[in-house]
Amino acid sequence: MIETPYLLFLGDAPDALAAKVAQGVRDWRPEYALGQLRLPGCKADMRLPDMDLDAGLRAGARTLVIGVANRGGVISPAWKQVLLDALEKGYDLASGLHNLLRDDADLKAAADKAGRKLHDVRIPSVRYPIANGEKRRGKRCLAVGTDCSVGKMYTALAMEAVMRARGTRASFRATGQTGILITGEGVPLDAVVADFMAGAVEWLTPDNDPDHWDLIEGQGSLFHVSFSGVTMALIHGGQPDALILCHEPTRSHMRGLPGYALPSLEVLRDTALALARVANPDCRVVGVSVNTSNLDDAAAEACLRDIETRLGLPAVDPFRYGAERLVDALEAV
Amino acid sequence: MIETPYLLFLGDAPDALAAKVAQGVRDWRPEYALGQLRLPGCKADMRLPDMDLDAGLRAGARTLVIGVANRGGVISPAWKQVLLDALEKGYDLASGLHNLLRDDADLKAAADKAGRKLHDVRIPSVRYPIANGEKRRGKRCLAVGTDCSVGKMYTALAMEAVMRARGTRASFRATGQTGILITGEGVPLDAVVADFMAGAVEWLTPDNDPDHWDLIEGQGSLFHVSFSGVTMALIHGGQPDALILCHEPTRSHMRGLPGYALPSLEVLRDTALALARVANPDCRVVGVSVNTSNLDDAAAEACLRDIETRLGLPAVDPFRYGAERLVDALEAV
Repeated sequence: MIETPYLLFLGDAPDALAAKVAQGVRDWRPEYALGQLRLPGCKADMRLPDMDLDAGLRAGARTLVIGVANRGGVISPAWKQVLLDALEKGYDLASGLHNLLRDDADLKAAADKAGRKLHDVRIPSVRYPIANGEKRRGKRCLAVGTDCSVGKMYTALAMEAVMRARGTRASFRATGQTGILITGEGVPLDAVVADFMAGAVEWLTPDNDPDHWDLIEGQGSLFHVSFSGVTMALIHGGQPDALILCHEPTRSHMRGLPGYALPSLEVLRDTALALARVANPDCRVVGVSVNTSNLDDAAAEACLRDIETRLGLPAVDPFRYGAERLVDALEAV
Repeated sequence: MIETPYLLFLGDAPDALAAKVAQGVRDWRPEYALGQLRLPGCKADMRLPDMDLDAGLRAGARTLVIGVANRGGVISPAWKQVLLDALEKGYDLASGLHNLLRDDADLKAAADKAGRKLHDVRIPSVRYPIANGEKRRGKRCLAVGTDCSVGKMYTALAMEAVMRARGTRASFRATGQTGILITGEGVPLDAVVADFMAGAVEWLTPDNDPDHWDLIEGQGSLFHVSFSGVTMALIHGGQPDALILCHEPTRSHMRGLPGYALPSLEVLRDTALALARVANPDCRVVGVSVNTSNLDDAAAEACLRDIETRLGLPAVDPFRYGAERLVDALEAV
C-alpha cells in the first residue's frame, strides 16, 4: 500500500500522453494529487500547483509518484538527483517503470539510509493464496473486453466516481500498474505466478458489506491469445455478480495480433457469462461500454443505438456521455 | 534440459505411491531408467536393478533424479549425504520437491565445486516470450479435463507411446513437474508469470514437420476456478488441432472445491472447442479419455458406451484398455 497523498513527478515529459499515470491520479484521485514537480523542458501540465520537494512536503505529500513513462522505462540521469533528494527529504517513491527502482543501487542505498520505501508496482509484494472459490459477501462487477486496451480501466473508474457521487459504496480494484499508482493499492496481475492468479483476485476483492460493490479492473480479453489466461483468472477469482462488456468498434484486428478478428459483442457476452457462472451462477451482463473516440458524434450515437438494439442492454461511452446509465443498470442487479 | 539417462533415487519412500515420479520414468521413458537407488527402509520397488552411485555411473547415468515425494517436500537429512556424494561423483541432480535444491546451501556449494547442475523443475529456467499467436507448422493435440487430476498426463503419454510404436512422429510436451522429470524437459506452467503463460506454451510446441504431433500435457480445467487461467493459456498458446476430453465419472465435486459440480462432457466440449477455435479455427474434438479406475469392469464398459453414444466420439480408458482408439481418431484428423 502506497502512502498518500502524492507529489506527482512529471520529469521532462515530452508531451501530455507521456504523463498518463499523473493524469489518472489527477482525474480519479484528485484528493491524492497535491501538486506536480516538473523538470526543465517538461511539456506536460496537469494544471496542478507546481511544487518543489520542500513545498510538497509542507503541503503534506508522503510519496513522490513517477507519473510519467519514458522511452524504454529507464530512470534517466536527469531524474536521478530529484529522486535521491526526495528519499533524503522523507518521501517514499512509487514507480511503474519497466526498470525497477530497487535495482538502481544508488536509489536502493538512499532509501535504506533514509528508511523510506521504493514501490515498484509492476512486481507483486504479497504472497497470494491459491483460490478457494468460496462465496464472498458483497457485490462485484468486472469489465471484460472484446480486445485488450478498449477502456476497461476507464469504465470501472468512471463507474466508481458516479457511484461515490451517489453515495453508493464502491471500490475500484486495480489489477494493473496504472490503476495501482492511481489508487495506491492493488494487484499487478500480469506479474503474478500462474497458480496464484485467481487467488490474487480473491485476495483483492475480499468479503465486504452486502451493499458494497467492488469494481474490478479487467485485463486482456478471453479472445486475445496472448493474455486470455489472465482474463480467465479474473472471471473466476472475481466471481462477479455483474459483467460490463467493453468494446472499441473501429479496431480491425486484435491488438498486436494481425490476422485475429475481434469477436462480436454477442459472442463475448455468451462466452464470458457462461464462464463467470461457474464461479457465480447469479452473474449477469448488465451493460456495454463503448470507446467511440474514433467516431464523430453522429457515428458514435448510431453505433451505441445499434449495440443497444442488438443486445438489449444499455450501451454508453462513459468518457463521452458519462457512466450514469451503466451504474443505473448495475444498481438494478 | 536434464541430461539422461537417470539413476532413480527412491530414498526411504514409505510406499509405492510416494515414488510416482520414478514410476512415471520407468513406465514412459524406460530407456532413461538405468536403475534405482534405495535407502534402508524403502518400501517402493520399480523392479529396476538396484545400484549405488558408482554402479549407476558405470552404467552411464548422468543425473540422479529424486523420484520420490516426501512429506512437506523437504530434503530429509537421510537423503542429504547421498545427494552430496552424487554431486561429487559427477551426477547432476533433478528434483520436483517444493523445497528447492538450490536453496540448500550445502548442495549449492557442492554443485558449484563439482561443476554440476541442480535442476529444480518447479521453477522456470527460461525467459519465455509473450505469445504472438502466429500459426505454427506441425500438429498439436491437447488434453482438457472436466476437472484437475483426471488423467490428462497419462492420456498424452499413453497416446505418445502408441504413436511411437506405430512409427508416427509424436512428442509428449510436459507442462508439469512430473512430466518434466519423466522426459527431461518442458515448461513448469503453473510457475510461469501470468503474462508469459501462453508464450511459454508456444515456445514448448514450436514449428515442426507437417506430419509431427505434439501431445501437450494439459493442466487444470476451464471449470476449476483456482487454475482455469492456466488451462486457458494452454488452449490459446497450444493452438491445438485436436482436443481430447478427459473425465473421471465418479467424482462428486471439483477437486478441492466442495460445492462446485463438474461440468458435463458436452459442456466441456462446447466451451473448450469454441475457445480453441480462436487460435485454430480448424480445431476438433476427437475423443474422450475416461479414468474408470473407481468402476468395476461392467460399470466401466457401460460408462464408456454411454459416453460414446452421447458424444459420438471414441471413449476409452487408456490405462484399462489402451490408447489405440484415441490415436486412431487423432490420425484421422
